[in-house]
Amino acid sequence: MHKFDPSAKGVYLITVTPFTDSGALDLASTDRMVDFCLERGVTGLTILGIMGEATKLTAEEAKAFTRQVVRRVGGRVPVICGVSSPGFAAMGELTREVMGIGASGVMVAPPSTVRTDDQIAGYFDMVNETLGAVPWCLQDHPVSTTVQMSPAVILRILKSSPNCVMLKHEDWPGLAKLSAIRAASDRGEVKRVSILTGNGGGLFLPEELSRGADGAMTGFAWPEMMVDVVAAHARGDVERAHDLFDAYLPLARYEQQAGIGLAVRKHLLHQRGAIASAFARRPAPKLSPQDVADIERLVRRQEKRLSQLG
Amino acid sequence: MHKFDPSAKGVYLITVTPFTDSGALDLASTDRMVDFCLERGVTGLTILGIMGEATKLTAEEAKAFTRQVVRRVGGRVPVICGVSSPGFAAMGELTREVMGIGASGVMVAPPSTVRTDDQIAGYFDMVNETLGAVPWCLQDHPVSTTVQMSPAVILRILKSSPNCVMLKHEDWPGLAKLSAIRAASDRGEVKRVSILTGNGGGLFLPEELSRGADGAMTGFAWPEMMVDVVAAHARGDVERAHDLFDAYLPLARYEQQAGIGLAVRKHLLHQRGAIASAFARRPAPKLSPQDVADIERLVRRQEKRLSQLG
Amino acid sequence: MHKFDPSAKGVYLITVTPFTDSGALDLASTDRMVDFCLERGVTGLTILGIMGEATKLTAEEAKAFTRQVVRRVGGRVPVICGVSSPGFAAMGELTREVMGIGASGVMVAPPSTVRTDDQIAGYFDMVNETLGAVPWCLQDHPVSTTVQMSPAVILRILKSSPNCVMLKHEDWPGLAKLSAIRAASDRGEVKRVSILTGNGGGLFLPEELSRGADGAMTGFAWPEMMVDVVAAHARGDVERAHDLFDAYLPLARYEQQAGIGLAVRKHLLHQRGAIASAFARRPAPKLSPQDVADIERLVRRQEKRLSQLG
Amino acid sequence: MHKFDPSAKGVYLITVTPFTDSGALDLASTDRMVDFCLERGVTGLTILGIMGEATKLTAEEAKAFTRQVVRRVGGRVPVICGVSSPGFAAMGELTREVMGIGASGVMVAPPSTVRTDDQIAGYFDMVNETLGAVPWCLQDHPVSTTVQMSPAVILRILKSSPNCVMLKHEDWPGLAKLSAIRAASDRGEVKRVSILTGNGGGLFLPEELSRGADGAMTGFAWPEMMVDVVAAHARGDVERAHDLFDAYLPLARYEQQAGIGLAVRKHLLHQRGAIASAFARRPAPKLSPQDVADIERLVRRQEKRLSQLG
Repeated sequence: MHKFDPSAKGVYLITVTPFTDSGALDLASTDRMVDFCLERGVTGLTILGIMGEATKLTAEEAKAFTRQVVRRVGGRVPVICGVSSPGFAAMGELTREVMGIGASGVMVAPPSTVRTDDQIAGYFDMVNETLGAVPWCLQDHPVSTTVQMSPAVILRILKSSPNCVMLKHEDWPGLAKLSAIRAASDRGEVKRVSILTGNGGGLFLPEELSRGADGAMTGFAWPEMMVDVVAAHARGDVERAHDLFDAYLPLARYEQQAGIGLAVRKHLLHQRGAIASAFARRPAPKLSPQDVADIERLVRRQEKRLSQLG
Repeated sequence: MHKFDPSAKGVYLITVTPFTDSGALDLASTDRMVDFCLERGVTGLTILGIMGEATKLTAEEAKAFTRQVVRRVGGRVPVICGVSSPGFAAMGELTREVMGIGASGVMVAPPSTVRTDDQIAGYFDMVNETLGAVPWCLQDHPVSTTVQMSPAVILRILKSSPNCVMLKHEDWPGLAKLSAIRAASDRGEVKRVSILTGNGGGLFLPEELSRGADGAMTGFAWPEMMVDVVAAHARGDVERAHDLFDAYLPLARYEQQAGIGLAVRKHLLHQRGAIASAFARRPAPKLSPQDVADIERLVRRQEKRLSQLG
Repeated sequence: MHKFDPSAKGVYLITVTPFTDSGALDLASTDRMVDFCLERGVTGLTILGIMGEATKLTAEEAKAFTRQVVRRVGGRVPVICGVSSPGFAAMGELTREVMGIGASGVMVAPPSTVRTDDQIAGYFDMVNETLGAVPWCLQDHPVSTTVQMSPAVILRILKSSPNCVMLKHEDWPGLAKLSAIRAASDRGEVKRVSILTGNGGGLFLPEELSRGADGAMTGFAWPEMMVDVVAAHARGDVERAHDLFDAYLPLARYEQQAGIGLAVRKHLLHQRGAIASAFARRPAPKLSPQDVADIERLVRRQEKRLSQLG
Repeated sequence: MHKFDPSAKGVYLITVTPFTDSGALDLASTDRMVDFCLERGVTGLTILGIMGEATKLTAEEAKAFTRQVVRRVGGRVPVICGVSSPGFAAMGELTREVMGIGASGVMVAPPSTVRTDDQIAGYFDMVNETLGAVPWCLQDHPVSTTVQMSPAVILRILKSSPNCVMLKHEDWPGLAKLSAIRAASDRGEVKRVSILTGNGGGLFLPEELSRGADGAMTGFAWPEMMVDVVAAHARGDVERAHDLFDAYLPLARYEQQAGIGLAVRKHLLHQRGAIASAFARRPAPKLSPQDVADIERLVRRQEKRLSQLG
């Protein structure tokens, strides 16, 4: 089985959670979605995140969904679970449960209540105590957490966190931050962890790969875009990486809109056959006819560009 | 059994959650604390709030604690449970559980993600769908939620919420808001709900009673202060209400400090014999020797004032 | 002279403020920049905004810069000045000054201290009193102000603001909001004002034009992109509008990064000959060699796409 | 003339700005207010702060008011001016102006846009460059700035700021922070600066003096309370300091309410004869009849307690 460790690279896809049209958890679609992702070459799956509607699941549903994903993946790639919680008791409880089910590791973002460098570092000391030996990913996503972590505080966390194996880099703008963190491990000041990026919803992927990112961890209805961009970049064909990226950029930009983005993604995953229903639980954005028309145009134009690209 | 309805008045005490010195849930102290509160004349108990360290409990612990409180109270006063959650699935689940155990109602604050009047009102439409027939209290606490609810939006929520029976008024400053909401029900524009206050941690209690509050819902290591102030005010002895309040104000002010306040309260409740240990779960503030010296001085001075007051 | 009224359309460019390499206001470059913009077909100029480093100018410098821009424009297009201020005395003072110099109107965003619908509407009542008969543009930019204005509150402001002639629409995501406001004026519920967009830094321009926007108000080192996209859309060639937009999107995305964006823009405007120096006053982002390499690649690729597009 | 240096102690009163009933700057009342403060024993005056309605003054008015205060004070105590500004150009300009007029120093708070320790420290490096040799006071007021400065970052600023002579300590709760900063200078790790406190509007003054504060910098309609509390504490009569403080606490608590507080203060200063009108410029809170009744009761009760205290 794939381990979750600092050598992680490629594309860890942030998955949605499929529901039926009546809002029930859809385990059949869960299998279909896992297959859809693995067939397109993703190297990991991240579940129970914000875009996975984790907070809209009951505790039982979260466990059932995790179990289904882990079983379908069958050890082919690591499965990472978001366990950010308002308190450490719940974080510890959820971590034990998902690791017991067979997850490969967990992901933690800081709560909006920590602000100063000392508060942030102190928070992750308690995260380390809570998680024990479980490998984990540090999520740096100021847009949702409102917590701004400087490069200095990230390095401080990495130094004091033996089992932190990955940074999910989503600060925006974040290219300079990514460069600073990579430079520190290159200079041997801190261990090297995997850095997967989701900056602006992956909208800076080629530039981030040039700065030393190991791949992407974000969601997009065309996971193959990220897989192909990362592969082209890895084999040194940077222009091809940009060509591919640019071909998808107009739609990716539209899918990454805050608020409506989840509805766009589920609509497209449904169209592509990855899930049986685009249903999202409340509070859920809904697509207007104008949104659907926008999407249709963008998909049609994307297909044309891809066929030209070859 | 006392019902939880718009006629509620007096003091609904926000309780702490007692732990042993090693951090385990302390059910024996839970009984002791319930007795301590009831003996001092509180008319309701509110559990699983922020000061009750709700987020630091596992799901099982939250149920065990609720069960213990409900059993010990034995129907003498209503027991209200905080059920604010990042998602409606968890809110609904927790509500069903605590109502099944015998709670009298629940309390809900809006999440920090809602900002505009329409977003706030829309959120509580979903709360109403989630809670069904369960009577509930609307918590207006901008200091912790960052959500500012104007009098207009509170009235809008009351109009669309048949089972909202109480407003926990904690906005600061909030005297004008309290007056505006009371005036609206006096004019018959909206149903009359109970208004219990916690403005600044109860630091404006006498003034709030004069504005039409029905009592207090907050925590303080001397619940009898609030009970006596409310009683004096209710029998028209407003000066006596102020005399009592002023006698406790210097210590109340100290106990209501953000951050350190929980440690002060548990220290005092432990000293008064209400709980066996002052332990608070991490992240937990700790009292320094200087803090303890401050508290000792304030308690000694409070005793002197109370003896002078007679 | 072009008037600033609800019929405004096209591209109102948010200009930078040029400095010399030693940090002094560069009035010669100011002329050059005005010419650069007008030659590319912009229909208005907006100065003294955030990207214009307005807060880094002394009062005298702001006046000198405004005077230079107004003189060089010579009445060919309207000049709008940002006058958002912490207090109404300063807002009124600055408005009188820039209108006296010959500006066509002003732009106002709400301060971060207003939150509820009533607070926001009340704030703009005071703006109207302050501005008197001066035509003004309402700036809706939550990313910088943290103020979320619902469609309902924007309509309320438009109804009570006889001299508000334009909405600068920068909420993100904002397509649904734009549609709602346009629909309200189409139904005759509110007067029709000009809507110019800057959503995500103009990254949704073609979709916004389809929703009824009259053009764009944002900054970009290639103003001709926005001019050409708006023109193609206006003559019904929506696909051409998208083709043009997509050709510039990878670089536009890079230039719109928060923080570093100003440095990218000044670097490019300097390269294109519009200003003599890329200097920005502190606190100012600086481009790293890696940033410059990113930009060079993106410019080269953009040129290639534009030549293919014809 | 009194210098503004690290030996500062006593009470630096935050003054209001007096207006006439029609809203004009009232220079005659400015003299009266200065006399009122000096007669009550304050050791410094701080003008152009938030409670001084600084943002509601035009540039000319701010200068005229400063000139009047400086002239009336006549060098008897230092006059400090708030110069926090959105940009350094304005901060430098205002600083030069007020120092030219004869102010003794300035006060600076960080802008809400800085968050991490590095951002905060970097901001004050630019403040030092801007202020040059002018002695200045660091204002730590998270309630208004939203910036949380840890003890570590305050010490870092003190180390890199040769002309920072004072900390205005207003964090809440802040007793532990105050103790930590004092301990650092006691250990010789950082120079000793004056610490004047305004924590919760001065509501923790006696406790703060015990932690090593040199006095208070805040506003209150009875400056003699703070003067007497500081004096009693300085001569070792801590119980008397508490007795005095407690006698004023119920009214001080009421005057320190956010929002309405300025109206309460001006109402009381007007009643006490310090200013000719309680007028505040918009946006301004207004007292309701209920507010006035509250204030009358609190003043009457305060007078009774003071006469009992002797």
